[in-house]
Amino acid sequence: MPKVTQEHLDARREEILKGARRAFAEHGYEGATVARLEEATGLSRGAIFHYFENKNDLFVELAMEMNTRFGNILLESGVDEAFRALTAENPEWLAVLIETEGRLRHDEDFVRRFEAKAAGTSPRIQEWFEQQQANGKLRDDVSWQELGRFTTSLLNGLALRVAGGDPFDVDAMVRLLGDAIAPQRRRTT
Amino acid sequence: MPKVTQEHLDARREEILKGARRAFAEHGYEGATVARLEEATGLSRGAIFHYFENKNDLFVELAMEMNTRFGNILLESGVDEAFRALTAENPEWLAVLIETEGRLRHDEDFVRRFEAKAAGTSPRIQEWFEQQQANGKLRDDVSWQELGRFTTSLLNGLALRVAGGDPFDVDAMVRLLGDAIAPQRRRTT
Repeated sequence: MPKVTQEHLDARREEILKGARRAFAEHGYEGATVARLEEATGLSRGAIFHYFENKNDLFVELAMEMNTRFGNILLESGVDEAFRALTAENPEWLAVLIETEGRLRHDEDFVRRFEAKAAGTSPRIQEWFEQQQANGKLRDDVSWQELGRFTTSLLNGLALRVAGGDPFDVDAMVRLLGDAIAPQRRRTT
Repeated sequence: MPKVTQEHLDARREEILKGARRAFAEHGYEGATVARLEEATGLSRGAIFHYFENKNDLFVELAMEMNTRFGNILLESGVDEAFRALTAENPEWLAVLIETEGRLRHDEDFVRRFEAKAAGTSPRIQEWFEQQQANGKLRDDVSWQELGRFTTSLLNGLALRVAGGDPFDVDAMVRLLGDAIAPQRRRTT
């Protein structure tokens, strides 16, 4: 029954990721020792590292999961929903995520793993921006690359705000972003 | 000659801050040990901690210096120049700054020191946004608080981008931000 086995493996993998995320959020990347990862997942180090090569690998998986999830929300439900989803995230986890991603940006192993995994979603995001431009739903006097950079920079800046426990008005942010990237006829004012 | 003495004290203080900034950028907050701070400043720990209570205090000073500097650029030269200044910052320092600010957000001592120092610039920023709104230079259908949150979140998100070594087109960002926060008649398209 290879299908059941795969399902079991996937479920166990998800369980480990969930526990590791809790451990990272609570103790930070450095503070999430193997003993704490064992405690948070309820599994032995042997079991954990059967699924993931090392702690770095675990973190890359979690970071990419976030990227993919937000990419999917953007593609399927729009920027509004991505902003809303952000405010529902655990601030502790967001803080550790931003902090650690920043710190690991010069770790070649991290960058290599991260880029390999990002290869799946990045082209879909690009396609989405290009299509929205072609359909007249986004302004086309600025390249889709810069529209994307503007949008993701704002999203990351708001993530920093959520991480710091500073609230903001999601509707206002969505409206301002909309007016920045929409063609003239779609502006709200 | 109290004036000369004060000047000397100020110069020495600046020297220490500059050296500490280099040490933080190179080794990270944790990695910037007292020995490395001594090396980077060329001064003894006795001299350093005559001016600053502890490492936390040194970091708060540097973080606030950045805040004040960018606040001043915004007030005196506008958002365009603030964005441009950001791209000229040392990426390593920006990365450590964002990372450490995030990590220290639950350190009561840090928050207390930071807020005490921020009390000087924050009202001027508020006044600037309110005045720009009153003069019809910013849209007034969204509160100045949210216009400020949008602008600083974008600035912080772009700082993350600079820290990660990912370039962006400053002019495009300035134009998109302008169209987000300007009243309709000032839109570029």
